[in-house]
Amino acid sequence: MKSFQSIGVAGLGLLGGSIALAAKRKGLAENICGYTRTPETLKKAKNLGVIDFSFQDFSDLVMNSDFVILAAPISVNVELAKSIAKIKPMLLFTDVGSTKDLIVQTVEKSFMQGHRFCGSHPMAGSEKRGIENSNPHLFEGKTVVITPANNSESSVIETIEEFWRNTGASVTRMQSRQHDEICAYTSHFPHLVAFLLVDILSERINSPSVKTCIGAGFRDTTRIAASDEEIWTEIFVSNRENILQAISKFRKDLDNVTELLQKQDFDALKSWIEKIKKIRNEL
Amino acid sequence: MKSFQSIGVAGLGLLGGSIALAAKRKGLAENICGYTRTPETLKKAKNLGVIDFSFQDFSDLVMNSDFVILAAPISVNVELAKSIAKIKPMLLFTDVGSTKDLIVQTVEKSFMQGHRFCGSHPMAGSEKRGIENSNPHLFEGKTVVITPANNSESSVIETIEEFWRNTGASVTRMQSRQHDEICAYTSHFPHLVAFLLVDILSERINSPSVKTCIGAGFRDTTRIAASDEEIWTEIFVSNRENILQAISKFRKDLDNVTELLQKQDFDALKSWIEKIKKIRNEL
Repeated sequence: MKSFQSIGVAGLGLLGGSIALAAKRKGLAENICGYTRTPETLKKAKNLGVIDFSFQDFSDLVMNSDFVILAAPISVNVELAKSIAKIKPMLLFTDVGSTKDLIVQTVEKSFMQGHRFCGSHPMAGSEKRGIENSNPHLFEGKTVVITPANNSESSVIETIEEFWRNTGASVTRMQSRQHDEICAYTSHFPHLVAFLLVDILSERINSPSVKTCIGAGFRDTTRIAASDEEIWTEIFVSNRENILQAISKFRKDLDNVTELLQKQDFDALKSWIEKIKKIRNEL
Repeated sequence: MKSFQSIGVAGLGLLGGSIALAAKRKGLAENICGYTRTPETLKKAKNLGVIDFSFQDFSDLVMNSDFVILAAPISVNVELAKSIAKIKPMLLFTDVGSTKDLIVQTVEKSFMQGHRFCGSHPMAGSEKRGIENSNPHLFEGKTVVITPANNSESSVIETIEEFWRNTGASVTRMQSRQHDEICAYTSHFPHLVAFLLVDILSERINSPSVKTCIGAGFRDTTRIAASDEEIWTEIFVSNRENILQAISKFRKDLDNVTELLQKQDFDALKSWIEKIKKIRNEL
């Protein structure tokens, strides 16, 4: 098992903290270094034993790590990747952002003399957040999507894949553009819809009659509407082109169903639901 | 505790079967009679011990029961209510359909000399269906919304409320129109959206890459897309006016968010999500 001298985690939320704990638990590094913009979080991570060494300066984390995982919001990861290009361009690193094309393109443009990067997206989300919810088992049995850059070397991809497998995850490779296009439909737009479902009810949500009529269906469908605003704004903005396409497809579909409702076309509605039920049951 | 000589259940799906089992378990009747259109289901209900007596003819069920619960699809319940008006107009009865205004209006119009009806909507759904999934505990800790007709007598409402409390549920009264308007937002339109989210992905849902990118979020949000097509077509058609209003409100909201995405208005998106997250967390 490949073991690193020092793994650096930048961004100490639920995901960063869970990576640090998993790496510790599985003995994937001699020590774990942490960096985050908020001094209180950095202190908390150290006190909770999630990291061994804390750095208030990203360049110090980079200089003291032989593998860095960017687990900050997407736009921050992008800036940190640019810093790595300047400070230590041959550093092995990955990121764990929920959109992949922006960071992959950034690396392709910023590292003029080659790089040792490929992207990672652990399919292990939670509507919880924060270092205090970190969980060393978060990746066990989950899939991590690996998105190489055009010029990622095989040895780099394989080392990063091995790291994820060592946390208990399985890995699968995908082009970053394909990843973002698919996730617009499987995750990003469904989140947007969950926010919208809560929003259209928001004026009246505290009325006792409305509360009575909220059942398990609404709770499940809108569970992800409790997700973090910073993370999700970053996802929506960085993957807006694909999400706008999903919106456009959804609108057309909604237009069709609206017409069936207006016409009270019982048979067509029933066939439509039957078709979808079958698809959903096979998931 | 009010005990009936004979409770008749019309429609032996998950809900009808669970009512029969709950009534048996709690000793709410000397015997339970069942009626449904499908002979095999009727036989199965008898063999499983869910009902004591089976009737292939609804009028026989009516003649042999002192309290009838209509648990068939909404349009069938409406026809059965009209039959009760002709056969035995002073029969105590309720229905358990997910929309309430159509049945309440039907009763108000069909019973010229008074009636002994009020509507019920147990907030105890499941995407499962069928008599074999019946559960005597289904109503425990759940709420049943009681929707009286304009001319429902207090004693009738109270008897039906007591029946539900005896199954382990709590009850709350609501006007049928208000119930349907609220449920369009808390249940019916969210179901429609879950169907749509599966539908816009349906062409590609079997691709391995798409399956990889389907996580807990998508599964939760679309769990209710595995719901029964007959039940949901009936709900959509009978509550179409309110659902069309919800669609219209959703469209306006979606237009606003689309604009924020196109403008990449990071701050406005973040505030919007933050507001919704707070609301969702308070549910």
